[in-house]
Amino acid sequence: MLLQLNNLFCKIMGGILNVKQFSLYLKLVVIKSEKGEEVGVEMEEAKGVVKHLLLAKFKDDITAEKIEELIKGYANLVNLVPPMKSFHWGTDVSAENLHQGFTHVFESTFESTEGVAEYVAHPAHVEFANLFLSSTEKVIVIDYKPSV
Amino acid sequence: MLLQLNNLFCKIMGGILNVKQFSLYLKLVVIKSEKGEEVGVEMEEAKGVVKHLLLAKFKDDITAEKIEELIKGYANLVNLVPPMKSFHWGTDVSAENLHQGFTHVFESTFESTEGVAEYVAHPAHVEFANLFLSSTEKVIVIDYKPSV
Repeated sequence: MLLQLNNLFCKIMGGILNVKQFSLYLKLVVIKSEKGEEVGVEMEEAKGVVKHLLLAKFKDDITAEKIEELIKGYANLVNLVPPMKSFHWGTDVSAENLHQGFTHVFESTFESTEGVAEYVAHPAHVEFANLFLSSTEKVIVIDYKPSV
Repeated sequence: MLLQLNNLFCKIMGGILNVKQFSLYLKLVVIKSEKGEEVGVEMEEAKGVVKHLLLAKFKDDITAEKIEELIKGYANLVNLVPPMKSFHWGTDVSAENLHQGFTHVFESTFESTEGVAEYVAHPAHVEFANLFLSSTEKVIVIDYKPSV
């Protein structure tokens, strides 16, 4: 049932957001009694998606046009790096003034931490990252597996 | 069609993730000619969701149990503050070492920036935020409207 819902969800998400299909990773877990006897087997979700967040503040001399170009380049990595499943970005709209000067958020989604590692090492990412990072005054990059 | 898909998407998301139903805000936009005459009316998506991201590093003397308690308190705000629609969190799993010492990511979703403002001012949030922030060494809070 969950798998069917997941497939339907992916179809719809794919339709609306043009997101690539996610796989649902499952592993079999052997259930043992206190004496160590196998008493059953059940499925467990082995890996959830990994969110790869990048917060950026661009250097003052980077023009709006240049920033737009960089964002397009970032978005295009979805087409070049297979484990990168989706990409969203936005600018700071917070009113609390706790954003520490960061102005842009970039959020990519991967199937696994292995997928992020493949992305980080991918030539298309390496080339883009050099260009991107040379335009930023500061960045934070943090990956996490969001709870459901 | 998009509305139907959106409703279906919400139903499924609600089923899988126990996320409250999102409303799709629409406003009517009057189309005027160059001379200022009204020539038509169309619907426009007025507001997208707003992601409210909080990155945290807890103080060294905050125990794992205390952190767990704080996370439960954060998650419970979904039940107390109406405009807060969903909450996910996770710990840093990045390998790049660009996380600047931040260890936890908390991501809340709101229907609008007005919803975030209502949340920030809500007594349940104010009380929790005082408790939470006193346990952190540093935080970044940034809101953004993710691109689709």
